[in-house]
Amino acid sequence: MSPTIETLSWHGDRFGTLKMIDQTLLPTELKVIESRDVETVWEAIKMLRVRGAPAIGIAAAYGVCIGLQALPADVDLHTFHDQLDKVTDYLASSRPTAVNLFWALNRMKVKAENMYPVNNVPIIWEALFTEARAIHNEDRHICRAIGHFGQELVKDGSTWLTHCNAGGLATADYGTALAVFFAATEAGKKIQVYADETRPLLQGARLTAWELMQRNIDVTLICDSMAALVMQQGKIDGVVVGADRIAANGDTANKIGTYGVAVSAKVHNVPFYVAAPTSTFDLSLSEGSEIPIEERSADEICDGFGKRTAPEGCKVYNPAFDVTPAELIAGIITERGIISPVNRENVEKLVS
Amino acid sequence: MSPTIETLSWHGDRFGTLKMIDQTLLPTELKVIESRDVETVWEAIKMLRVRGAPAIGIAAAYGVCIGLQALPADVDLHTFHDQLDKVTDYLASSRPTAVNLFWALNRMKVKAENMYPVNNVPIIWEALFTEARAIHNEDRHICRAIGHFGQELVKDGSTWLTHCNAGGLATADYGTALAVFFAATEAGKKIQVYADETRPLLQGARLTAWELMQRNIDVTLICDSMAALVMQQGKIDGVVVGADRIAANGDTANKIGTYGVAVSAKVHNVPFYVAAPTSTFDLSLSEGSEIPIEERSADEICDGFGKRTAPEGCKVYNPAFDVTPAELIAGIITERGIISPVNRENVEKLVS
Repeated sequence: MSPTIETLSWHGDRFGTLKMIDQTLLPTELKVIESRDVETVWEAIKMLRVRGAPAIGIAAAYGVCIGLQALPADVDLHTFHDQLDKVTDYLASSRPTAVNLFWALNRMKVKAENMYPVNNVPIIWEALFTEARAIHNEDRHICRAIGHFGQELVKDGSTWLTHCNAGGLATADYGTALAVFFAATEAGKKIQVYADETRPLLQGARLTAWELMQRNIDVTLICDSMAALVMQQGKIDGVVVGADRIAANGDTANKIGTYGVAVSAKVHNVPFYVAAPTSTFDLSLSEGSEIPIEERSADEICDGFGKRTAPEGCKVYNPAFDVTPAELIAGIITERGIISPVNRENVEKLVS
Repeated sequence: MSPTIETLSWHGDRFGTLKMIDQTLLPTELKVIESRDVETVWEAIKMLRVRGAPAIGIAAAYGVCIGLQALPADVDLHTFHDQLDKVTDYLASSRPTAVNLFWALNRMKVKAENMYPVNNVPIIWEALFTEARAIHNEDRHICRAIGHFGQELVKDGSTWLTHCNAGGLATADYGTALAVFFAATEAGKKIQVYADETRPLLQGARLTAWELMQRNIDVTLICDSMAALVMQQGKIDGVVVGADRIAANGDTANKIGTYGVAVSAKVHNVPFYVAAPTSTFDLSLSEGSEIPIEERSADEICDGFGKRTAPEGCKVYNPAFDVTPAELIAGIITERGIISPVNRENVEKLVS
């Protein structure tokens, strides 16, 4: 990705605006959404204009700042507190699976709660804005750290497969799964990547292929149903994907199709890695079966290409995520290092 | 499928015309192509307007009749023979993987060769037309026999998964994999079917969902990448798919994505069946690795439905088929009975 293209950017002080690339229009159109009200942020998360667990967290944190802009400058603490609750509850309703959404909103609320004793709204307000900026900046560092640890797994001349988009567009600007490829390339290794197109919303075709081409990484686009074949052909040395939520035992929710890739990888003895910031772990969930799985509209499958592709009235099942059991995951690459083997004890040791 | 809709139909005597449903336009448009020249037949096979191994065989046999129509009524035997060779070679170049294409063309040639001693072109010509009609009619009986044997595997109240379209549209009118569901339903069993949409050309969404809905069978459309999840959820009791070519050891080439479904089925202890006429076996091939795999245009993946979904210039790998090893197949359902376990000896016993 060209360094001048930012997934999200904030312009101005705490009364400023949030700009986000509308990722539903890529790769044919590069349009930037300017958000001046919290409804626009909610809609952008809901409709996947901004997507990818870390990017959703950043958008939500800034969304809180935007939601607070509706208040008068001389607002009292009680009203401020009410508005903060209202805005965080509202933003939390946009997407059920991505834990970074709740993580970022909770971080904003905790910040405010810790500040309430100072009893000075402008100071608290400023502190919340600083917290959103911090979440954004930390993500840059986290992604680079993930790339740093992950690239050690990548041999020169190796070929990798990824599913969906866990790239710069899913984060502040460098990605999680794709950070591994970016960092390996920056370390002088020559690699090839197979990108699953990732039905129904084609984030692999639209976003991952685009990002890798922007960085001159050799990428080959395939349909999701071809991943097992390229593994059978012996073309794939490893798989890296992102994550939307990881339970305490390492079970990982990620974009629908990830589980099938992991099953194929296991059968073909291809190591399967997850790359995600520690904020993606939800230690309140003992295992993956407790992760709520978002179901989305049938239209995404039947009417996604600008042309109806299934009979009218056809029954459709459209889960947005699946859960890959820890035993299929060779390692989870985080900003603090790699968890391997993936089990409750090692997750606990690194994350908590 | 409504009994009035025929995948292919011949109108008139040996100088008649072939009508075929243009399957690329389903389910939004039901258009019938009238073929009066062999180029139209070749293009219809090449462009998947007619598709499915048995239907391709029928179209090719009639295509030979159409190719011979270019000859004058008083043609000599030598010219007739030359034209027959030309037409069969031309039609054979339309698609490389479907063995029924070569099987049907060879059957027409063998018929002619056996007739040459009579040294009477009109009689030979008529015999070839009768052979094409026979191939067409036999397919109806074969599909019903496959349904008859296959439905015994289907328990009342069970849920099945299929990939691509091996239905009436892939054959004369009743299907191979879908014949199993049709026959089970006709036997009074209540079943549910999950249909993989089958990227890139969406035969599952466009054709299988449509056929099952026409016959009031409870069908749920999913993306290919969701098949592993529905198996993990315990929703699937069995899988049936069609086949494009089966080697002597039972290794089966079928639509891309079939292998991944078979791998998932194995891991989840779901029985995986292939339904195909014995004409799909190619005993000249010892194993699946010898089956040539057709690679198709990148546009099918990047530009398939009227909207560009990948960056311009993106490298694409688009194999049309994959090969499922015999050891992943619980049984092959043919018109002569079920081959199980699937191995060289049992294939030999039933097919040759």
